[in-house]
Amino acid sequence: MLRLHGFAVSNYFNMAKLALLEKGADFEINTVHSSQDAEFLAKSPRGKVPFLETEQGFISETNVILEYIEETQGGKALLPSDPFARATVRALAKEVELYIELPARSCYPEVFFGGKVEQSVKDKAKADLQAGVATLRRHGSFAPYVAGSEMTIADILFLYSIDLAQIVGKKLFGIDLLGDWPEAQALLELLNQNPHVQSIAADKNAEMAAFIAAMAGQRK
Amino acid sequence: MLRLHGFAVSNYFNMAKLALLEKGADFEINTVHSSQDAEFLAKSPRGKVPFLETEQGFISETNVILEYIEETQGGKALLPSDPFARATVRALAKEVELYIELPARSCYPEVFFGGKVEQSVKDKAKADLQAGVATLRRHGSFAPYVAGSEMTIADILFLYSIDLAQIVGKKLFGIDLLGDWPEAQALLELLNQNPHVQSIAADKNAEMAAFIAAMAGQRK
Repeated sequence: MLRLHGFAVSNYFNMAKLALLEKGADFEINTVHSSQDAEFLAKSPRGKVPFLETEQGFISETNVILEYIEETQGGKALLPSDPFARATVRALAKEVELYIELPARSCYPEVFFGGKVEQSVKDKAKADLQAGVATLRRHGSFAPYVAGSEMTIADILFLYSIDLAQIVGKKLFGIDLLGDWPEAQALLELLNQNPHVQSIAADKNAEMAAFIAAMAGQRK
Repeated sequence: MLRLHGFAVSNYFNMAKLALLEKGADFEINTVHSSQDAEFLAKSPRGKVPFLETEQGFISETNVILEYIEETQGGKALLPSDPFARATVRALAKEVELYIELPARSCYPEVFFGGKVEQSVKDKAKADLQAGVATLRRHGSFAPYVAGSEMTIADILFLYSIDLAQIVGKKLFGIDLLGDWPEAQALLELLNQNPHVQSIAADKNAEMAAFIAAMAGQRK
């Protein structure tokens, strides 16, 4: 059986979890946090979550886990079969990761954990986020899903990145990244009706208070 | 026929070019530089190179282009067929991109183009690069290729990232990322004997002087 390692507040963990749920995969969860201990690094070489335990060994990096799930599990397709359409979905997912999630992430310490982020980092994040959103609006179809009529891995990346990016935009920059983007708002509404998305949100909310307290403790 | 857009000094362009050459694909090159013009953004949504023109449209993001080439072109395999082995190769390639190429890239303005990079960015890049190299040493097999006995997309990412990262390490931090890593040095030596790698290097060197002059002009 597959075993997904990570924790319910992690947005990348939730991407992998949603893919497993959508595919109807047989899996279990092992709650674990990022670590630089030797034992952990032997399973996840950069010390991050999520990682997926298979009968052959461990797989890290979320998009790689998503590809593996798609290749090995039955259930509904999260990538189209045509190579060009697959490439479009993969590019959209990558654009969300590199140009929205990563710049937003550079500000998480200040936005979520009470730390401080340097002004130059914030300036760069703001410009990058705005360019990233423009990229996705230009390239995505949002009809209603990011890449068209079917839910794909691009929606999974989008769902668990844009919410955090939006909070960063509002709190640090006074801008609403989704403000004049009704298609994205409609897609989030649609995705949030998905029962797997709802169960993941419930698990996340249940864990959130303890997570925030632990992060605050680490900073002391 | 496939058409690869970009320029010979771009390391990401050269990754896609090497994959096309290794697969024996029928392709041509259109020399073009990154741009935020509307016409360019319609082909490459973030305004970057490389992008690949196919009969169905344009594909951007290098790893996505590599996957598309692998899926549609004959010739030797650059990804293993077993899903777990594929995942390992993809994770290694992603580790090179996120944990070596991207931190090194944050320092390119100072190292290659005579600009200045803030100290906090350099401090982060140094720590990230060292952790990235440790990640790759931990996870890669280098026997002799990054993922084992066959050349894969992980080698392509490695070849065109570690050289620039090594220059950043030496120039800014006085450290040689490959200094005590003979397996990586041996792999670079092996890859540099590849005739496609050699022809790409020749094209790059031919374009370098004009590129440096253009970048210096842009800063004025």
